[in-house]
Amino acid sequence: GYARLDTDRLTRTGDPEVVYGAGKTPDQVVDLLRHLHTAHPDRAALATRLDATALDRVRAAFPDARLDEVAGTATLGPPPTPVGLVCVLAAGTSDARVAREAVRTVEAYGAGVRTITDVGVAGVHRLLAAKEEFDDADCLIVVAGMEGALPSVVGGLTGVPLVAVPTSVGYGASFGGLAALLGMLNSCAPGVVVCNIDNGFGAGVFAARVARR
Amino acid sequence: GYARLDTDRLTRTGDPEVVYGAGKTPDQVVDLLRHLHTAHPDRAALATRLDATALDRVRAAFPDARLDEVAGTATLGPPPTPVGLVCVLAAGTSDARVAREAVRTVEAYGAGVRTITDVGVAGVHRLLAAKEEFDDADCLIVVAGMEGALPSVVGGLTGVPLVAVPTSVGYGASFGGLAALLGMLNSCAPGVVVCNIDNGFGAGVFAARVARR
Amino acid sequence: GYARLDTDRLTRTGDPEVVYGAGKTPDQVVDLLRHLHTAHPDRAALATRLDATALDRVRAAFPDARLDEVAGTATLGPPPTPVGLVCVLAAGTSDARVAREAVRTVEAYGAGVRTITDVGVAGVHRLLAAKEEFDDADCLIVVAGMEGALPSVVGGLTGVPLVAVPTSVGYGASFGGLAALLGMLNSCAPGVVVCNIDNGFGAGVFAARVARR
Amino acid sequence: GYARLDTDRLTRTGDPEVVYGAGKTPDQVVDLLRHLHTAHPDRAALATRLDATALDRVRAAFPDARLDEVAGTATLGPPPTPVGLVCVLAAGTSDARVAREAVRTVEAYGAGVRTITDVGVAGVHRLLAAKEEFDDADCLIVVAGMEGALPSVVGGLTGVPLVAVPTSVGYGASFGGLAALLGMLNSCAPGVVVCNIDNGFGAGVFAARVARR
Amino acid sequence: GYARLDTDRLTRTGDPEVVYGAGKTPDQVVDLLRHLHTAHPDRAALATRLDATALDRVRAAFPDARLDEVAGTATLGPPPTPVGLVCVLAAGTSDARVAREAVRTVEAYGAGVRTITDVGVAGVHRLLAAKEEFDDADCLIVVAGMEGALPSVVGGLTGVPLVAVPTSVGYGASFGGLAALLGMLNSCAPGVVVCNIDNGFGAGVFAARVARR
Amino acid sequence: GYARLDTDRLTRTGDPEVVYGAGKTPDQVVDLLRHLHTAHPDRAALATRLDATALDRVRAAFPDARLDEVAGTATLGPPPTPVGLVCVLAAGTSDARVAREAVRTVEAYGAGVRTITDVGVAGVHRLLAAKEEFDDADCLIVVAGMEGALPSVVGGLTGVPLVAVPTSVGYGASFGGLAALLGMLNSCAPGVVVCNIDNGFGAGVFAARVARR
Amino acid sequence: GYARLDTDRLTRTGDPEVVYGAGKTPDQVVDLLRHLHTAHPDRAALATRLDATALDRVRAAFPDARLDEVAGTATLGPPPTPVGLVCVLAAGTSDARVAREAVRTVEAYGAGVRTITDVGVAGVHRLLAAKEEFDDADCLIVVAGMEGALPSVVGGLTGVPLVAVPTSVGYGASFGGLAALLGMLNSCAPGVVVCNIDNGFGAGVFAARVARR
Amino acid sequence: GYARLDTDRLTRTGDPEVVYGAGKTPDQVVDLLRHLHTAHPDRAALATRLDATALDRVRAAFPDARLDEVAGTATLGPPPTPVGLVCVLAAGTSDARVAREAVRTVEAYGAGVRTITDVGVAGVHRLLAAKEEFDDADCLIVVAGMEGALPSVVGGLTGVPLVAVPTSVGYGASFGGLAALLGMLNSCAPGVVVCNIDNGFGAGVFAARVARR
Ligand SMILES: Nc1ncnc2c1ncn2[C@@H]1O[C@H](COP(=O)(O)O)[C@@H](O)[C@H]1O
Ligand SMILES: Nc1ncnc2c1ncn2[C@@H]1O[C@H](COP(=O)(O)O)[C@@H](O)[C@H]1O
Ligand SMILES: Nc1ncnc2c1ncn2[C@@H]1O[C@H](COP(=O)(O)O)[C@@H](O)[C@H]1O
Ligand SMILES: Nc1ncnc2c1ncn2[C@@H]1O[C@H](COP(=O)(O)O)[C@@H](O)[C@H]1O
Ligand SMILES: [Mg+2]
Ligand SMILES: [Mg+2]
Ligand SMILES: [Mg+2]
Ligand SMILES: [Mg+2]
Ligand SMILES: [Mg+2]
Ligand SMILES: [Mg+2]
Ligand SMILES: [Mg+2]
Ligand SMILES: [Mg+2]
Repeated sequence: GYARLDTDRLTRTGDPEVVYGAGKTPDQVVDLLRHLHTAHPDRAALATRLDATALDRVRAAFPDARLDEVAGTATLGPPPTPVGLVCVLAAGTSDARVAREAVRTVEAYGAGVRTITDVGVAGVHRLLAAKEEFDDADCLIVVAGMEGALPSVVGGLTGVPLVAVPTSVGYGASFGGLAALLGMLNSCAPGVVVCNIDNGFGAGVFAARVARR
Repeated sequence: GYARLDTDRLTRTGDPEVVYGAGKTPDQVVDLLRHLHTAHPDRAALATRLDATALDRVRAAFPDARLDEVAGTATLGPPPTPVGLVCVLAAGTSDARVAREAVRTVEAYGAGVRTITDVGVAGVHRLLAAKEEFDDADCLIVVAGMEGALPSVVGGLTGVPLVAVPTSVGYGASFGGLAALLGMLNSCAPGVVVCNIDNGFGAGVFAARVARR
Repeated sequence: GYARLDTDRLTRTGDPEVVYGAGKTPDQVVDLLRHLHTAHPDRAALATRLDATALDRVRAAFPDARLDEVAGTATLGPPPTPVGLVCVLAAGTSDARVAREAVRTVEAYGAGVRTITDVGVAGVHRLLAAKEEFDDADCLIVVAGMEGALPSVVGGLTGVPLVAVPTSVGYGASFGGLAALLGMLNSCAPGVVVCNIDNGFGAGVFAARVARR
Repeated sequence: GYARLDTDRLTRTGDPEVVYGAGKTPDQVVDLLRHLHTAHPDRAALATRLDATALDRVRAAFPDARLDEVAGTATLGPPPTPVGLVCVLAAGTSDARVAREAVRTVEAYGAGVRTITDVGVAGVHRLLAAKEEFDDADCLIVVAGMEGALPSVVGGLTGVPLVAVPTSVGYGASFGGLAALLGMLNSCAPGVVVCNIDNGFGAGVFAARVARR
Repeated sequence: GYARLDTDRLTRTGDPEVVYGAGKTPDQVVDLLRHLHTAHPDRAALATRLDATALDRVRAAFPDARLDEVAGTATLGPPPTPVGLVCVLAAGTSDARVAREAVRTVEAYGAGVRTITDVGVAGVHRLLAAKEEFDDADCLIVVAGMEGALPSVVGGLTGVPLVAVPTSVGYGASFGGLAALLGMLNSCAPGVVVCNIDNGFGAGVFAARVARR
Repeated sequence: GYARLDTDRLTRTGDPEVVYGAGKTPDQVVDLLRHLHTAHPDRAALATRLDATALDRVRAAFPDARLDEVAGTATLGPPPTPVGLVCVLAAGTSDARVAREAVRTVEAYGAGVRTITDVGVAGVHRLLAAKEEFDDADCLIVVAGMEGALPSVVGGLTGVPLVAVPTSVGYGASFGGLAALLGMLNSCAPGVVVCNIDNGFGAGVFAARVARR
Repeated sequence: GYARLDTDRLTRTGDPEVVYGAGKTPDQVVDLLRHLHTAHPDRAALATRLDATALDRVRAAFPDARLDEVAGTATLGPPPTPVGLVCVLAAGTSDARVAREAVRTVEAYGAGVRTITDVGVAGVHRLLAAKEEFDDADCLIVVAGMEGALPSVVGGLTGVPLVAVPTSVGYGASFGGLAALLGMLNSCAPGVVVCNIDNGFGAGVFAARVARR
Repeated sequence: GYARLDTDRLTRTGDPEVVYGAGKTPDQVVDLLRHLHTAHPDRAALATRLDATALDRVRAAFPDARLDEVAGTATLGPPPTPVGLVCVLAAGTSDARVAREAVRTVEAYGAGVRTITDVGVAGVHRLLAAKEEFDDADCLIVVAGMEGALPSVVGGLTGVPLVAVPTSVGYGASFGGLAALLGMLNSCAPGVVVCNIDNGFGAGVFAARVARR
């Protein structure tokens, strides 16, 4: 086999292994998803970073799988009953894929989720108007590309734990998301923590764990 | 005055403003600390990044202040009753200053804290032996310099939410902590989130907020 | 001599040459300032980036010079009658030196100037409250370090031309102001333009020219 | 929908939102353009970064739209009466796309515009000969790739406010426009301000605002 | 000819020249392989970095060649009798191509080889369980992408000389393998040495030379 | 205590822990050296990166310690009987500190060592003349700063396993040793492996392990 | 037209303008070549960076043009009588395109040229054997990718002025030619000067000017 | 001895070894200078990068040595009869040290030299006025910091071979001379070649060799 699944991970960490689809063939994705589903039939198995072909193959193999074409994800098996609430905020429409990957991950990891989009800092009144919608969450995921300023503004409005996700949206001196990443790491709002560029999955895992406590 | 303190922050976010001592004169630190203490007499005021001179001046001005010379911090006023538990793990002895800044911040932000040091990955048995000590925490802070590998190993052993702090410990191709920062951002353990290089304060704020929930 | 002053610059560009004090001895600064003052006695001569020693020497040599110790500048000769208004906004107290360098430059280049400090984005209400103070200016200079998010928020609140100045305030992944610089270059607010890190002088020249029109 | 247009932007900043075509489907572009045109029928709606397919779709949907295939832009609705004059200078023929994006943006934002091309610094007499053509403008936009030296030379010839736009034209150690960007940020001509690499749009917005005053 | 083969290399260094397939046409690869095989008929000739087309052409030209489609290599002529043992460890399934390039190189350079895959540090028990399998080798090759932490953990478990190979597996702030490369160069385990990103070939040559002694 | 020594390392890896002096007080160095010496009285204890003050303190505390002022090292206790031979080559005189750190480490780790200095590639005949002196070694350590070309030339002359150590010698575009590091990682000589910038210690550990086999 | 040719360049600098084909359509290339040829019918017109399509179009338009498919160049009109001698050395076979671009440029700029290929430093005897072939030249062009060490070795063997050209040949930490570029800039051989990555044209212009003197 | 002088260099390259003073003690400088002078009493021995202490020691040891305190150089023994002419142009007064290092090197390597300073591109008329002074030279050395634009403008005015030297003059995004270096490498003027940042010595060696032919 091309992979030794870490099926013991559920015991050690409370969450099962997932399928990371990048660089894998559709057949490998289907195979691994089946494997995970068999190992943990009562816990949703998640696959991320699936392109159109992989999504089609998964659909054909598992008619019950729930696919999200914006997120590029597939989920197989019963989702956990959601505990707590994660709120995902996204700065612009181009950040949708990353934001949705976070949403699907939060669900698969057992927390509830609410989404607020298009609240970029260049129109800060939209954000202020939404404060009530995110102030009662257990954890926030704030997704932004370009200069990545959204977490700083949100972080000054609320004390909810905040995970920032820089995206590769931008061009020129955005250097593939580096500008947003550095911006978030240097946020003047205390208590902002950061994930890798475009890593909606990592933010989702983390936030769900916080929310489930 | 040289600064307009954001004294409304407590209302908005649940935590008061703190004094960031870098680039400030000892007089300014004392002044700001007094200002914060007066504004919120029932909540500990914290000052970070204090050098020896600033610590001396604070000691003289506020005999009741609690100073930590390793961390370079001063705390004035009653600490909040700790809620929940944060565990701070540090890879090496050179990471002590950053780890201690995290510890003092967690305390000032109202959570309990436990410290485990010298559990670098080159002697992984020491870390495995300590699993029980960190597995029941509400949030982990994992501090490491050089290649910054510790969060990946810890993150594979537990499902506790994990905040990684890269330090500037190292030389040559560590590029002032860049190697550790990039390593942590690319951690293969799901759910690792990251702070700025040497930012024990930010990690402490975040972790305390998670633990207090 | 160690320098050929470009005394023809006033004719070509409408503004005289200035003395850039970095890397020059106090004697050279005094000498060049006298030279400029003699060449254009009716237009204020400006020297920037002066340390304490250079300021002392200038004070001794020209009792009439106006010194700004925060900015590190000296101005000799009658200031032009101000035309138009530039507003300088600064995110934090540590950005004061750069902001003040901009202020002194605007004055020497013939525009009026107003300053608003400590309006960092982590307390965005302070900024919203100040909108009236900057909305009637002819040009804005927005100074910020760390993640450099302030220009994006200001740029979404007003249509006044906005020049952003990143500062080297920060540590770790701020990389000497790089994070703020990249953030500003990637601002999602349309029409933000950017100067070199810590370059309050350049921003002041530009903004004064816009305001004077 | 995939986007919440910031239709309030006109009120706040005096200029309406535009459509940024990169990463959007042709259908989305048409949709957003219609939306903007409906919201502000008396003010030209602009779409940028359109490839050939998107331009075709816009042409089919809006026979009255004005398309610029070099710039990759579409404009729908009556252009504002031009106020003031912006002059766009470009160093080489390869910089045409960026220069033309600036031109179309200036027009849509309500200023007059004049273009001077192929005045690279390796043939500086061409530039000197053109001084009269740019010396009476209200704002200059100077577009250059490779080493990005043109703004320094122009900035030494005139006191007109000057916005520099680095382009990604070049190879090897140009690193996608980084060399030109750094060169412009370090310009020895006082008062040069800079936009993101290839950002003709941002320069156009800024310059039009200056010219309209 | 397009190349002067360094056929004297065997005399100087004990190992013959090999064919580096990247940037060469399939015809050139076949030609050079024949040339090497003719020059040293009793020592296996190796070609690396072959894509599917090149592999097909080699298969057609030399029915006796041994091809490895995962590694992208071809070997022609009798392999040397293996002396000593190299153990190749790989962190994840995506690192397979690089690991297999190392394996085929070790064989062609005359050492025995054993492979252990999918022992990433996020499941460190798998690695501990494998200690016996690698502790008796003469040299280790440790292949990992993302944060590249595996060599530090392995290097703390054994005194066998250890060559680390970073791979370009990852995204965002992995910057094409830079994160793993820096991590390995800064390893806190003493005695870790490093090859270029994805350079299984170089690690294989080195390790085989150590093992053969 | 400020440190938990990994005294079990000798059992796991065959070599004891060492004292890394950077960032430690002279007292800490003395203390740790005593600790190591007590734990393994029959195996030399090594301390590296000692400045003049630390060397003096060690001399006073342990009259039997062997100090190397060029290397900045101290060794306490009986050296192991050397097995095998490591040859250290250095390009220039400025590389001496790093080369000597490697030499002292090789000795403390139990291999014999021979040094060849000032064989930079700009005078390649000196290197060719020395081939006999390094061709019979079990492992080579090649130290060079600036462009770091020496390993490529040596690696083309011999099949002895070769560890390259870039140094921070140089200025400007050497970027603290980055140029040499990148050069060595991209060596066209097959089988060159690389250590961190200025890491003579790591190269010494590795080479001694190869030589002892 | 899309370009204003700098036809006065011949008068100012002694050499005519050339056509840089990158980013131009085949039609533009043909057009510009005709334009140059008409302006200076007695001096060869050169076009560089032509892909297969552009070469075909040039061949069709100008049957007398001399095409070089390895170099990607076309030359139209009588070559100048060669004065002096340039010698082009290339490290590996993959550097051929850049080396040949240099050769064709030297010819068009009026110097004689000799080529020596495949003299990489990993087989330094090949280079030593060729010393006579390059020691009588007026200027050397030394082309190398990967670690770019060749100029340092050549520069130590001869006092002929030496222009180094880094190429983008390599992978991983070669970062598109950056490793070779930095290596050459830091050459320990005195008097090595450097061109942009892959810039055979620039090296050719420079070397021909030296040789013609 | 701490160094093996390459005294055979004169035979191989036509020029003797020099003393590079950085990182050497004054005693070592004196010692090496004596050694070189003894080896080649009829050819000037040069030492560069000398600080005030080293210059004093050299003055005391060799009353006949010619010292240049701006350049930080010492020359001992009869200078060669100058052949040909090198012209050194410097953009600003802060570039003086580097320009003077080039001047002293040219003299020691046997060519005549002329200097033109303060001809930065922000006052391009000064440069145009000086064209006659540099147009008859055999080689130009053009020294500039900040954006490093001067070589592009000079290179468009003349066909004399041109060596560009970036300096570390600047701040912020000049990144220690990187901006100037990249600018010069990407010069749009054909035939500009480049040295390391601040490397007046290297430029001087190269230019003298060209001029002497
Ligand atoms: N050690 C620290 N590292 C990073 N940020 C800090 C630190 N200590 C305090 N801060 C932040 O600095 C802010 C105060 O900055 P200032 O207004 O410059 O005093 C606080 O609100 C915190 O967000
Ligand atoms: N060519 C361009 N380059 C950079 N930003 C642009 C460009 N065109 C439009 N924009 C910005 O993109 C915003 C719209 O982004 P979006 O919401 O993703 O459609 C506009 O408000 C502009 O600020
Ligand atoms: N996969 C590989 N990665 C790096 N270098 C290689 C690889 N395979 C072969 N080489 C090197 O490439 C050289 C041949 O290069 P060339 O002359 O371009 O064919 C060999 O001598 C090896 O040193
Ligand atoms: N200012 C300088 N910058 C760069 N390289 C220099 C300089 N001066 C001398 N060198 C070089 O340094 C070599 C001597 O270095 P070393 O053997 O360390 O004394 C000489 O052969 C020159 O190539
Ligand atoms: Mg939007
Ligand atoms: Mg330790
Ligand atoms: Mg503040
Ligand atoms: Mg042109
Ligand atoms: Mg796995
Ligand atoms: Mg030497
Ligand atoms: Mg070859
Ligand atoms: Mg000047």
